[in-house]
Amino acid sequence: MEDLRSAISAFIQERDWEQFHSPKNLAMALSVEVAEIVEHFQWLTEEQSQTLPQEKLAEIREEIGDVMIYLTELANKLGLDPVEAAKSKVAINEQKYPAELARGKASKYTEYT
Amino acid sequence: MEDLRSAISAFIQERDWEQFHSPKNLAMALSVEVAEIVEHFQWLTEEQSQTLPQEKLAEIREEIGDVMIYLTELANKLGLDPVEAAKSKVAINEQKYPAELARGKASKYTEYT
Amino acid sequence: MEDLRSAISAFIQERDWEQFHSPKNLAMALSVEVAEIVEHFQWLTEEQSQTLPQEKLAEIREEIGDVMIYLTELANKLGLDPVEAAKSKVAINEQKYPAELARGKASKYTEYT
Amino acid sequence: MEDLRSAISAFIQERDWEQFHSPKNLAMALSVEVAEIVEHFQWLTEEQSQTLPQEKLAEIREEIGDVMIYLTELANKLGLDPVEAAKSKVAINEQKYPAELARGKASKYTEYT
Repeated sequence: MEDLRSAISAFIQERDWEQFHSPKNLAMALSVEVAEIVEHFQWLTEEQSQTLPQEKLAEIREEIGDVMIYLTELANKLGLDPVEAAKSKVAINEQKYPAELARGKASKYTEYT
Repeated sequence: MEDLRSAISAFIQERDWEQFHSPKNLAMALSVEVAEIVEHFQWLTEEQSQTLPQEKLAEIREEIGDVMIYLTELANKLGLDPVEAAKSKVAINEQKYPAELARGKASKYTEYT
Repeated sequence: MEDLRSAISAFIQERDWEQFHSPKNLAMALSVEVAEIVEHFQWLTEEQSQTLPQEKLAEIREEIGDVMIYLTELANKLGLDPVEAAKSKVAINEQKYPAELARGKASKYTEYT
Repeated sequence: MEDLRSAISAFIQERDWEQFHSPKNLAMALSVEVAEIVEHFQWLTEEQSQTLPQEKLAEIREEIGDVMIYLTELANKLGLDPVEAAKSKVAINEQKYPAELARGKASKYTEYT
């Protein structure tokens, strides 16, 4: 992660793009990049989405890269680390979705009662 | 990243949620979680987005965690690593957006010519 | 549409919300509301999405309403009408996706060649 | 709206695209098209978003058209009308956001208490 953060910072500074990268704008850019992942899957069946041809996989890898870049940059700007935030959130989710209640159900935790 | 991947896998297996987590569905869930980040910023000015109150920051940290969880799980399912994908994409972007052409401009690379 | 536009304008003015509703912010709000539709479908199979229980349908109707409200307001702010824009776009799509080439294929028009 | 619905139905049938257009998939496509609107605004200031050049406006009009097409088709598939859904939602929002409480505030209705 540290290497990635440095590479992103250098890339931004060399292009003088700091001025565009407010957290608000980065959140928008993040959503645009995620939509480019979704676009690859929108007309596929769930089954087809499990066995993608190599070419499509290579394209999706690039989109996942873009999402990770903006997520890292947004988090960094807010003084956060996405990997640490994810670990904390898994711990929170373990409380919100107790295994015995949640097993095999896709419902939201607010629907358990 | 390895710790995070294991924690996510254990969480999913304990709840028997594998059945819902096709790449197609994970892409959808990823987009829903990103929108929860966007929701925090939608009515803020860019300036306000730079100086968030602690409480809001804590909420956004959870959303960033959720995005990172689904991104890691989606990537993992496709045999990919989001951090590696991001590093490769920075290298690609360095070619697509040459520093001397891109400096201070927010336009898409297809608009350079 | 004219009734809807008036109702939205009155609603906004009574709450003095014009100040928040720049086209940029409305585009963000639109994306957040669409994600609330997506959230209803993310863990359903395609088949399940065809036969929703009444209660879920009522919730989705509200989300569709929200999307239509922001779409109308955004379009209005740019001097546009979403229904007219959609009619023009159907005509454009008829050129981009000739029936004989596109029949039964979900690929993007750029992939025809 | 009736004209638009007919034009969309004819367009879909001529291309035999019914098979791809489950409500789940249409929700995904809707989110992808909204992201294409967001992309136009992501690096603009709020002020710039108020005064777009003609060329950009023409592009955004096409994206608004695409969003309206998928919204209409999704609603239609669920037996709903987006304009009627929006009118009902404005009435609901009038209750949720009483003018005297909401005036000049961008907070969510759940934050009023």
